[in-house]
Amino acid sequence: MTHSMNSGIRLSRRALLAWAAIALSACAQLAPVADPLPSWNDGAAKDAIVLFVRKTTEATSPQFVPPAQRIATFDQDGTLWVEQPMYAQVHFALDRVRDVVKAQPALAGEAPFKAVVNGDREAMARFGSEDLLKIVAASQSGLTIEAFHEVVKAWAASAKHPRYQRPYTELVYAPMLEAMQYLRSNGYRTYIVTGGGQEFVRAFAEAVYGVPPEQVVGMMHKVDYAVRDGKPALTFAPPLFFNDDKDGKPVGINMVIGRRPNAAFGNSDGDQQMLEWTTGGAGARLGMLVLHDDAQREYAYGPAAGQPASRVGTFTQALHEAAKAKGWTVISIKNDWKRVFAFD
Amino acid sequence: MTHSMNSGIRLSRRALLAWAAIALSACAQLAPVADPLPSWNDGAAKDAIVLFVRKTTEATSPQFVPPAQRIATFDQDGTLWVEQPMYAQVHFALDRVRDVVKAQPALAGEAPFKAVVNGDREAMARFGSEDLLKIVAASQSGLTIEAFHEVVKAWAASAKHPRYQRPYTELVYAPMLEAMQYLRSNGYRTYIVTGGGQEFVRAFAEAVYGVPPEQVVGMMHKVDYAVRDGKPALTFAPPLFFNDDKDGKPVGINMVIGRRPNAAFGNSDGDQQMLEWTTGGAGARLGMLVLHDDAQREYAYGPAAGQPASRVGTFTQALHEAAKAKGWTVISIKNDWKRVFAFD
Repeated sequence: MTHSMNSGIRLSRRALLAWAAIALSACAQLAPVADPLPSWNDGAAKDAIVLFVRKTTEATSPQFVPPAQRIATFDQDGTLWVEQPMYAQVHFALDRVRDVVKAQPALAGEAPFKAVVNGDREAMARFGSEDLLKIVAASQSGLTIEAFHEVVKAWAASAKHPRYQRPYTELVYAPMLEAMQYLRSNGYRTYIVTGGGQEFVRAFAEAVYGVPPEQVVGMMHKVDYAVRDGKPALTFAPPLFFNDDKDGKPVGINMVIGRRPNAAFGNSDGDQQMLEWTTGGAGARLGMLVLHDDAQREYAYGPAAGQPASRVGTFTQALHEAAKAKGWTVISIKNDWKRVFAFD
Repeated sequence: MTHSMNSGIRLSRRALLAWAAIALSACAQLAPVADPLPSWNDGAAKDAIVLFVRKTTEATSPQFVPPAQRIATFDQDGTLWVEQPMYAQVHFALDRVRDVVKAQPALAGEAPFKAVVNGDREAMARFGSEDLLKIVAASQSGLTIEAFHEVVKAWAASAKHPRYQRPYTELVYAPMLEAMQYLRSNGYRTYIVTGGGQEFVRAFAEAVYGVPPEQVVGMMHKVDYAVRDGKPALTFAPPLFFNDDKDGKPVGINMVIGRRPNAAFGNSDGDQQMLEWTTGGAGARLGMLVLHDDAQREYAYGPAAGQPASRVGTFTQALHEAAKAKGWTVISIKNDWKRVFAFD
């Protein structure tokens, strides 16, 4: 009796376990998987991302990509965070002019620094890219890389965007952060490939985007190595060394990654070559362009949004044509994003 | 009877499992762990590597380094593989001269190509670094990165080292491969930081060293992006873009990795700044230099080995002094390596 009862109990335990396993497996099949892209509205843009990930990561897919080769690249300004009314790094460099002139008083009388020191807004409005590049170079020249990172971090913690009155690091697009995290959770390494400064972005990329320093490709100024006061140091010099924009983006990708990306995200004519290079490879490829068409929640600018050409982040008509011809997906901020920022 | 017997068996099974667990755990404590560096003789060099790994990876160590920050850099020529009597890439570039001249016949009459075409060994013996750089640039210029990789792979599969009569890729130092694997199995990412061409090394680094393309830093020639015949392409141009040697090594490390390495391995005055930069950081650091003092199994050259200065891979007296002052460990091939090559 004891024995048979015991045996009976054992049987029913085994059966219970078997039933539980069947029930759990059925649940796993039926339960809706948590949406990895909750800030995206349903539509072609969201579908393109999900379909690309499935095609390249499901083991039985003919377009399967081995994990070590999974690379996704993201432009920063206008793709990951707000670039209007001026690039964050230009804001930073302008804020630094006072300190720069304190260290090198002769610059106070020289263009373009003179206009900044005098608060001459008319002259500043006429600044071309040459002037801005001079101001950017001066904002870092003479600093070690480590010291520069500290300066950028302090600025990022205190400076506020003129419209949103929040730090730039809060003006990151929530849907794009989700896309990065979704790609990473599927074995992709996410790189930032920016026309902005490589070290400027490295100063906060890990904290803000979860992107480590070795996955940031950017504009590079000359860096000198020397032993100073017995300590080895890497120090910024003024000359531009590498312009990571337009044609430079595929070149910078090759230099730092040495692999052709499988997916690339951009928003302006500075990203066209990166998308061309990425989607020109074999297998499943993803090219996406953020269209700034939401003046209410963010900005509307550039011809593709039916707006005048913008000096910052131009989505030209030519880029729009290229997108159609190459099958790149345009992300409409207005229609494709449920929310723009985490604080929305 | 059945019941008690059954119960008896169950008890003894449970006891057996418990005893087995105790026995296994005791074994694990007593059994010698397989030596991760079997090609190294016991001594200071081997100890330095093992101690460094323990200090930086054991969770309770005050010098623990989080896995994401674990970086080890390796020079290639003379550190990972044979560099005498001439760098493999120079051998490659000289072998390519015939094809280069076929494509650009005018070069046949110009120095330094003329000497190579005519087999003028006296003139070739006088080649300086300028001449060699011209030959190296010509060996890749006009090729896409992908096509160049194929050319290098084909050469590496067929070319033979003049002394060993084996492909260069077999002339990799077995102890160094073990050191790389040991570091990787302890969470380190191993980078090659070479004065040789970045793309030359990328062509075989994954197969030979287990080092993926994004972990190869090297000399860079200018690369142009263009759409050719409707297909985007990255193509080598002649100018040198970045010289990843001496002062250039810390700069190249910063450009591609953006982190200061924890360990660095070199063998010549081209590596001094990389070791300085690496060991100049806080916490546990490892700097190691391969001393070529084994004419029997490999080569003996350079002042530190009591030999005349070498045009290829000079271990100068100054580097020897720096090693003593900075606490870098010198690896004597003769004394520290049980075997030099896998085929030994």
